[in-house]
Amino acid sequence: MKRIAIGMAGGPTTVINATLAAFVRALYKEHSLTFIMNGYEGLANKKFLQANDEVIDIILAHEKVPGASLGSGRYTLNQQQIIDSVHILRDSRIDALVFIGGNGTMEALEKIKEEAHRQHYQLQLLGIPKTVDNDLSGTDHSPGFGSSARYVAQATRDMGRDLLSMNNFEQVRIIETMGRNVGWLAAAAGFFKKYDNDPPHFIAIPEKPLNREHLFHHIDKAIKDYGVAFIVAGEGVYWGKGVQIEKGRVNGRSILGGISKEIEHEVKEHFNVVVRSELLGMNQRSCSVSVSDTDYKEAVQVGYTAARWLKEGASEVMVSIYRAADSLYEAVCKPVSLKSVIQQGERKLPEQYWDDQAAYNEWLRPLIGYDLVSYPPSVLGEKQ
Amino acid sequence: MKRIAIGMAGGPTTVINATLAAFVRALYKEHSLTFIMNGYEGLANKKFLQANDEVIDIILAHEKVPGASLGSGRYTLNQQQIIDSVHILRDSRIDALVFIGGNGTMEALEKIKEEAHRQHYQLQLLGIPKTVDNDLSGTDHSPGFGSSARYVAQATRDMGRDLLSMNNFEQVRIIETMGRNVGWLAAAAGFFKKYDNDPPHFIAIPEKPLNREHLFHHIDKAIKDYGVAFIVAGEGVYWGKGVQIEKGRVNGRSILGGISKEIEHEVKEHFNVVVRSELLGMNQRSCSVSVSDTDYKEAVQVGYTAARWLKEGASEVMVSIYRAADSLYEAVCKPVSLKSVIQQGERKLPEQYWDDQAAYNEWLRPLIGYDLVSYPPSVLGEKQ
Repeated sequence: MKRIAIGMAGGPTTVINATLAAFVRALYKEHSLTFIMNGYEGLANKKFLQANDEVIDIILAHEKVPGASLGSGRYTLNQQQIIDSVHILRDSRIDALVFIGGNGTMEALEKIKEEAHRQHYQLQLLGIPKTVDNDLSGTDHSPGFGSSARYVAQATRDMGRDLLSMNNFEQVRIIETMGRNVGWLAAAAGFFKKYDNDPPHFIAIPEKPLNREHLFHHIDKAIKDYGVAFIVAGEGVYWGKGVQIEKGRVNGRSILGGISKEIEHEVKEHFNVVVRSELLGMNQRSCSVSVSDTDYKEAVQVGYTAARWLKEGASEVMVSIYRAADSLYEAVCKPVSLKSVIQQGERKLPEQYWDDQAAYNEWLRPLIGYDLVSYPPSVLGEKQ
Repeated sequence: MKRIAIGMAGGPTTVINATLAAFVRALYKEHSLTFIMNGYEGLANKKFLQANDEVIDIILAHEKVPGASLGSGRYTLNQQQIIDSVHILRDSRIDALVFIGGNGTMEALEKIKEEAHRQHYQLQLLGIPKTVDNDLSGTDHSPGFGSSARYVAQATRDMGRDLLSMNNFEQVRIIETMGRNVGWLAAAAGFFKKYDNDPPHFIAIPEKPLNREHLFHHIDKAIKDYGVAFIVAGEGVYWGKGVQIEKGRVNGRSILGGISKEIEHEVKEHFNVVVRSELLGMNQRSCSVSVSDTDYKEAVQVGYTAARWLKEGASEVMVSIYRAADSLYEAVCKPVSLKSVIQQGERKLPEQYWDDQAAYNEWLRPLIGYDLVSYPPSVLGEKQ
């Protein structure tokens, strides 16, 4: 019997609770489980909850519920807190520490590993991937991303038809997606585009600085050709003086958001048309009716795999997802060292996809699912 | 064989194309159909499209597609345009004019009726209801509303769990819904609330002026009791100096939106916590994966009923929805005169529902559907 502590960190997703439930289901009968509440803040402050029948029942009941049932959080441990956290784990006689999270989460695990080594404390460590932005390296993609990409793709498809219907009232709509420094989610907005007049008519990603004249050229062309222009911008797009637009800072972390509003003002001024900007917002990471089957299944898979590896003694690795080479699409889990995940840094959208939606769609399709399709052409306006 | 002209006006919904498709399917084999593009602007400017096999195919293919396949629009006809429009219809030898829309649409139909009378032109007139705001009188509710209410209810349920998970990062979230002067959609945000800590913790509707101290009291209490406060505000809520917040004006029509941002600023200043405001946005009227079965069925029902009545000679009425008295829930269509619809004005949320979510939910449940349920209690934080 091992004493295992598990926590969740970073922004929640629609499927992070599925990962936790799978992990718990595989272990709770034979091992001692300690739940760390509210991410690394809970670790530093020993906000622990010991498993019992009632707690297990609650966790399993949240399997299909968005958000993080243990509480998550954004919290960067300083060096003293790392030392204290390792003391806390050691005093609690924890054999294994597991965190579900993204880049920041894996970095913290790596620091805890180093401190545990320093204290000659044998602590087994496992990371489980989770991010809607898909900026985690060492894995083909992370659970949470597929459902968010599906949400972005479907919302763009649907809102696009709304805008085309209202071309005598509103000419430009600018939609802002999540994805701090990476364009995976923004580029997913083009997934269902099939005909020239289908939105979106332009997608801006953080990997490519956005040039004002270039954007205006595309807006001008779309308004002339289709009566409307539908623009998508990732929240982390560099604009104007080559900076990202910050809404504020929390605990030293920049809160992005506002690029669509900035673009709105300039487009209004330049074109003198009606422009609306909108954030796709929190729905991107919480919309339960947009969960993709693949994403849900893989969220369970990584949770279950972590539990299995934990029993087998694996340590200092993250569960990563590869695509099986001999299959149309099949996700296979492999261990990747925490160190290498961190060393590779943020995972950007590869350049081959920047201007090739078809190539990106091929990569993305299994993650979004096959049940939603593109709409028939919107062509009645041209038939008069 | 009748010569029938049909158009769509006002903001699109997820199911307005279902209404059009049902209407067309019932009539196209035996009658001549003329489609009016882009709402009343298309009528005034004779943007007509004559039915043929290809056009019919396109309309039927859009049955489950959001937006308005004929193009819609917001356009108020002046007196001269009313006169011209009637001339255009008469010159085109139209026997019947049908519009799918809301309050403004029915008002325009009534004016066209009066002008047709003045010109001694026998024009059959029918209105078909459509609005996400549910502010149309003379009907229990309108197609489009049920799906939007479902979207608002589900998004609040889901985002609520997201916020509860992040209480050490973000304390207040303010969500803004559609519903210009009426609280039907805002109040739907409370539909899935089951436990005290479940969001939303306060809902502001346009029918009740929002008092700053009252709101702050609820936010203060929610933060103390649950760590977070989740607030919902209808876009038309009266605030501060007793006015609605305008983002701008288009064709003389006020564009609301911004109340959540105003509240955000004041809450930040007063409580010194992290606050995020968000519009639920266009998704409310276009999200295809949130369509309620009841709403879709009734959108078809009103379209089909209008076609039947049109063949039977009914005129100067709107198709309205009643609840059958002898059934758990069954929608029955009855004609109501355009004049009485207009005389009753905007349909507000009845006072009996303002502070009684359970009573409102009972009315709302069949429209939202029975397939989505409340989440299990979020209580792990209290178990430590």
